[in-house]
Amino acid sequence: MEKKMGSKTYHLPSCPSVLSYGSAVGVKEGKGPLGGRFDQIFEDTLAGEKSWEKAESALQKAALNHALVKGNLSMGALDYLLAGDLLNQCISSGYTARDLALPFFGLYGACSTMAESLALGSMLLDGGFGHVAAAMTSSHFCSAERQYRSPLEYGSQRTPTAQWTATASGAVILGNDGPGPYVTHVTIGTIQDHSVKDANNMGAAMAPGAYDTLCAHFSDTGRTPEDYDLILTGDLGQLGHDLVLSLAERDGNTLDDRFQDCGVLLYDVEGQDVHCGGSGCGCSAAVLTGMVLDEMRAGTWKRVLFCGTGALHSPTSLGQGESIPGICHAVALSCQKE
Amino acid sequence: MEKKMGSKTYHLPSCPSVLSYGSAVGVKEGKGPLGGRFDQIFEDTLAGEKSWEKAESALQKAALNHALVKGNLSMGALDYLLAGDLLNQCISSGYTARDLALPFFGLYGACSTMAESLALGSMLLDGGFGHVAAAMTSSHFCSAERQYRSPLEYGSQRTPTAQWTATASGAVILGNDGPGPYVTHVTIGTIQDHSVKDANNMGAAMAPGAYDTLCAHFSDTGRTPEDYDLILTGDLGQLGHDLVLSLAERDGNTLDDRFQDCGVLLYDVEGQDVHCGGSGCGCSAAVLTGMVLDEMRAGTWKRVLFCGTGALHSPTSLGQGESIPGICHAVALSCQKE
Repeated sequence: MEKKMGSKTYHLPSCPSVLSYGSAVGVKEGKGPLGGRFDQIFEDTLAGEKSWEKAESALQKAALNHALVKGNLSMGALDYLLAGDLLNQCISSGYTARDLALPFFGLYGACSTMAESLALGSMLLDGGFGHVAAAMTSSHFCSAERQYRSPLEYGSQRTPTAQWTATASGAVILGNDGPGPYVTHVTIGTIQDHSVKDANNMGAAMAPGAYDTLCAHFSDTGRTPEDYDLILTGDLGQLGHDLVLSLAERDGNTLDDRFQDCGVLLYDVEGQDVHCGGSGCGCSAAVLTGMVLDEMRAGTWKRVLFCGTGALHSPTSLGQGESIPGICHAVALSCQKE
Repeated sequence: MEKKMGSKTYHLPSCPSVLSYGSAVGVKEGKGPLGGRFDQIFEDTLAGEKSWEKAESALQKAALNHALVKGNLSMGALDYLLAGDLLNQCISSGYTARDLALPFFGLYGACSTMAESLALGSMLLDGGFGHVAAAMTSSHFCSAERQYRSPLEYGSQRTPTAQWTATASGAVILGNDGPGPYVTHVTIGTIQDHSVKDANNMGAAMAPGAYDTLCAHFSDTGRTPEDYDLILTGDLGQLGHDLVLSLAERDGNTLDDRFQDCGVLLYDVEGQDVHCGGSGCGCSAAVLTGMVLDEMRAGTWKRVLFCGTGALHSPTSLGQGESIPGICHAVALSCQKE
């Protein structure tokens, strides 16, 4: 049976199920509008570790552990782990994988990693490779800030278009059989780069990639935005979200209130001084595992298109005059196998 | 049909085929014992680009282009690209994927990336996702040296256990149907970390991971080393290679001359002053695409176990007192579907 639909989308006939999921966030995220929904809020920025980088690994371990406990699963039930993060050489995920002693696929998709790991994990399970897989990612404001921007002690001002890297992790455990939600389709993104060079404007850099993947998904599947109760990008922030709306309007496509962005949902954008909203791999991971999957199981939303967006630049590439490549992978979640 | 064998190994019943492959290397690699085998040798360290990082992307594009031309394939035939590299945020692969405009899975497996991308690509194809996939990676001595160690201008001395990061890229195009060699099994590695903290001794850091994956592969499949004509790790270098031999001897296992390492094969270890041999994602990629696949097609070797080894640390993690996690993924290649 042909699984490929159109140019970039694959149908997963077995519809791998979300078995369980867990989330762990920092103080600021805990004070945001979704604060009551997370499995764990670390009051300590270091999460009891000696560095922010190690704290980020601690967030991952906490998120996965909550997922295992909530799903009544043991670590030994996992066939493999797919994970990645923003840090150089993806050390949050690498050291987590070491401590968990799981067969490990390391990924790098920047802030698209939650969607990338979900997509790959679902495809592998649908392909008959094992029975249970974990997809996970994280970010930490402090480790990201000093790696990508300035030492925190410097206290540099942030531009109006900047986003706030979430201190957060989310883990999803996927299985061949389960109560849902189910992964029914994935659309694998192609990088779009419209020459944005401002590392403080990720929304503008990633919006074309998000829109391209949305268009591909709808074209490949024959679906329309109305077929989804929620179309959730992460993390374009307010500006990137508005840009995608503009692109859709230009093309005569309708993306109404069902189109939301994890970067806008995670924080009180005005009240928490996060400028354009949240970002970081952990942002969409935490919104997915803290809110979306709960609401799907509660019946609020029947079908969700989860679209992870990532900016695949580095400080070195920008320093060499390069622009910011944006990518987006879409994962269609449904309360029914379809 | 159950594809999982034992703890970490998967049998791929459709046996995806290598359709084509290409390689591109730098001057030093061109002067090594395999120099005559590569598709392209860049005499210019910058490969006509303005930075070593961009040169590394140029190597990737050249390797993939050679693979396409040799296989009489067009870029449009590729359903997706799986790639990663050593640079922060994997920019060699990200910018390559941007310029190629292919659906893109970004990976991070350090020097295990050639094996990781081959494994994932083969699993996805075997799972029915598309028909043609590219697996690719690269490294560049100059971009790696200044990122991981010291500015090149500093001319720092190298320790006796150090390895030389290869300036090289290899690309493999996989397909559902083809002339072989075929990917019959993959073994997904679990990280092993025996507390090595010396970033100039990658062989010692990665040898336990390599040995663990070899043991898992043989245990899972019921095969023995004698079932392979070549067991090829990459890139343990001379010291890591000898350590794996010692571990095997300790356990009463026999790994004779059929056990080789890409880091030892790529250079004239004595004559080219590379100390313990080659390393970098591109090392095993170039040995695979420059020599191994050719020799398999020529009938020299019928079955090869290609074992990519990676060290998942970063300068930051070592600076924080962490040790070096080592991983190894094994890909069984055979001239017959089996």
